[in-house]
Amino acid sequence: MQQILIKNGLVITMNSQRQVFDVGSVLIEGERILAVGRIAPEMIREDAEVVDARGKIILPGLINTHVHLSQQLARGIGDDVDLLTWLRQRIWPYESNMDLEDSYVSSLACCLELIKSGVTTFAEAGGQEVDGMGRAVTESGLRANLARSTMDCGIGLPTRWQESTQVALAKQEELFARWHGQAEGRIRFWFSLRTIFNNSDELITRTKVLADQYRVGIHMHVAEVLEEIQFARESRGLPTVEHLAKLGVLDSNFLAVHTVWLTDKEIDLFALHDVKVSHNPGAAMKVLGFARVPEMLDRGIPVSIGTDGAPCNNRMDMMSEMYLTSLIHKGRTLNPQVVPAEKVLEMATINGARCLLWEDEIGSLEPGKKADLIIINPQSPSSLPLHDPIANLVYAMNSSNIESSMCNGQWLMRDRQVLTLCEEEILQLAQERATALIKKAGITLPSRFPVLTNPPVA
Amino acid sequence: MQQILIKNGLVITMNSQRQVFDVGSVLIEGERILAVGRIAPEMIREDAEVVDARGKIILPGLINTHVHLSQQLARGIGDDVDLLTWLRQRIWPYESNMDLEDSYVSSLACCLELIKSGVTTFAEAGGQEVDGMGRAVTESGLRANLARSTMDCGIGLPTRWQESTQVALAKQEELFARWHGQAEGRIRFWFSLRTIFNNSDELITRTKVLADQYRVGIHMHVAEVLEEIQFARESRGLPTVEHLAKLGVLDSNFLAVHTVWLTDKEIDLFALHDVKVSHNPGAAMKVLGFARVPEMLDRGIPVSIGTDGAPCNNRMDMMSEMYLTSLIHKGRTLNPQVVPAEKVLEMATINGARCLLWEDEIGSLEPGKKADLIIINPQSPSSLPLHDPIANLVYAMNSSNIESSMCNGQWLMRDRQVLTLCEEEILQLAQERATALIKKAGITLPSRFPVLTNPPVA
Repeated sequence: MQQILIKNGLVITMNSQRQVFDVGSVLIEGERILAVGRIAPEMIREDAEVVDARGKIILPGLINTHVHLSQQLARGIGDDVDLLTWLRQRIWPYESNMDLEDSYVSSLACCLELIKSGVTTFAEAGGQEVDGMGRAVTESGLRANLARSTMDCGIGLPTRWQESTQVALAKQEELFARWHGQAEGRIRFWFSLRTIFNNSDELITRTKVLADQYRVGIHMHVAEVLEEIQFARESRGLPTVEHLAKLGVLDSNFLAVHTVWLTDKEIDLFALHDVKVSHNPGAAMKVLGFARVPEMLDRGIPVSIGTDGAPCNNRMDMMSEMYLTSLIHKGRTLNPQVVPAEKVLEMATINGARCLLWEDEIGSLEPGKKADLIIINPQSPSSLPLHDPIANLVYAMNSSNIESSMCNGQWLMRDRQVLTLCEEEILQLAQERATALIKKAGITLPSRFPVLTNPPVA
Repeated sequence: MQQILIKNGLVITMNSQRQVFDVGSVLIEGERILAVGRIAPEMIREDAEVVDARGKIILPGLINTHVHLSQQLARGIGDDVDLLTWLRQRIWPYESNMDLEDSYVSSLACCLELIKSGVTTFAEAGGQEVDGMGRAVTESGLRANLARSTMDCGIGLPTRWQESTQVALAKQEELFARWHGQAEGRIRFWFSLRTIFNNSDELITRTKVLADQYRVGIHMHVAEVLEEIQFARESRGLPTVEHLAKLGVLDSNFLAVHTVWLTDKEIDLFALHDVKVSHNPGAAMKVLGFARVPEMLDRGIPVSIGTDGAPCNNRMDMMSEMYLTSLIHKGRTLNPQVVPAEKVLEMATINGARCLLWEDEIGSLEPGKKADLIIINPQSPSSLPLHDPIANLVYAMNSSNIESSMCNGQWLMRDRQVLTLCEEEILQLAQERATALIKKAGITLPSRFPVLTNPPVA
């Protein structure tokens, strides 16, 4: 098996002791990490590929725990509107008009942005056309939990999406059989629940049975907006999380996304049941409100970071989300010491791995783990000087500092050039598909300023 | 005079009607814009330099209304600490140990980051070594209001900075004589007041007299933290803004920065006196709290955007600040419709010009105005597809989309290459100076993770 030696970088391992090597190396063999830190010369084979990372930072690949692959072509169609307009006038018409090929192209465009911003693993929130998503992930070289958008009730759902509880579950089992363990084990399939607005109690409890049976997780939007809490109280007699607890689905394989509107009691329930949390600060600030992340971290709840989808953030960029995660809670609590940079880095790496039930293989640079890592070049006007590299990583650097990326021992990007996907082709295809899809869906956007149409100058 | 024709781009003029030309051009002659939109062929001389901007966006250069040039070498020394530690253990020791050459290098590094993120004009908050700053601005090609950090009282001030009211004022008059109108008129000198903690009432009122006499503005940190309001109440009997009103200094040439802690009455006072505001969302989220920007905009107060300094944001990046400006108030008010993208763009361009009393010459693309503009290339995985270019500009694009920049008719950057400054040399110099300065100032930072020191691999 081919060896790769990445040498002499600042290695931030994120192992259990959080060791940092100021001049360290990572030795990779095949899909896995063989050694980290100071490497015995006899371990390194003569034909190893050697990469000099002097002056650079080597970090575990970032883990994005909430992504909507199928929404990538919708960036810019849902800005500055209320939530109901966003959902019913923009996103549902868009998503319900997608075909398999649209889903594939949207996923490719999203994977491209994820790779360029340092992500090596992500969790899909649940789209409609999982086969298109799976095909794109396979090609991209990324690692992912896929899921199917699952709804069996609710007001205003497009006709195409209406299906029974039984069908919703059966389709997921079918997809599990087709996708789980594919792409050299890089793809896993999870069960998904969209929201309590669109999921019956029967669906929720039967999903839990299946997830346990198949030994995977459940991905669900939880306590996202105040209206959801009101809806849960009115329809179920309890706020969302209390109701989920009553149904018996809160467990260590339950990933709750957003979790903006939680009572103290509900945070206790999360801690009690080892529930996993995905915090999405961009979406939170734009539409939802500020989640009580410091409080959850204090209770030992594993909180990770997600970008959400392109039309509600609108940056599928974990570097940007790390920055927001560090800022949002300081401003909210007026305490500049909460959620410090090193905690943010944990959330984006090892906590992400825990939340995706994948911490035995990813999330840190340790011998035996999968070789998922990024190389960061801090030499830029926006990130120098370097007094505190971890602070600069979180507060100052952006995706353009991510120089190279590797997943499962395979290079995804070298020197900002994505190797697994053709950037130019995908961008062109994405724009064409996006324009056609918006037209097909009948979505029109108001003009922000008066536009004068001119003929080009020769 | 040399003509430059930038043709066939999406021209967002930010003129009084906010006209956008879907395929438009900008014709420049010398320092000024000659024509915008559809340009009569007879206006274009044969020897004009022609730049094809097809598929790109042409926008007025961004205006950053609050910058600390001298703090650029301090990025990363003040993260995750409380405000008093930040000020007294980190920033004051750093700034009070700077010399003229440090100030020059810090300013160069800051100008570099400003250019690369689309800024053509900025306002200095007031540093110690104005001559170093002026020299750097002259070389950078940027347009700037400079100022001197001015303090005549307060607890814990480094000895080196202690001076009388008279000396504080006299030094500013001297700097006005030396710098105002320099660098082909790109530099203006303003009077500055640091904060009410460090400014006597005599200094405040005499500053107003001088600013009026010299027909320039006053740059002041106002209502920044809750402690400031308590201090003002205890020492002056009124909160900061009410006290400034009582002193008679609130006026159309007063630029109030941060303004996080304002009462309704104080917002009324701003509106009444046509006070200008600089909103710094990054610093606000990190340390200060959320300013009531939608409320100020609703009252017609010209609110602009600033980045603050590198150790309190930590991105001197207006693209990032525009994004934060759009998000922060939606999350705070739970109304996704407040501060929409087009409003953010106004804040970063034409409102910036109004706040710096420079709207007769900059802030929009109009015949007769100075040729300050940027060309933006939206072709990137993080900003496509383009359904709503103004939304994508604010919500999705980042500084790497800024392709070229021009100030006063001179190219500052082409295809991400800064032409006026040597990037590589400045980065190296900045790191060297920064390391030496921190050492000289005796600043030590705690380690975030355990660091193991290794010898390099051969």
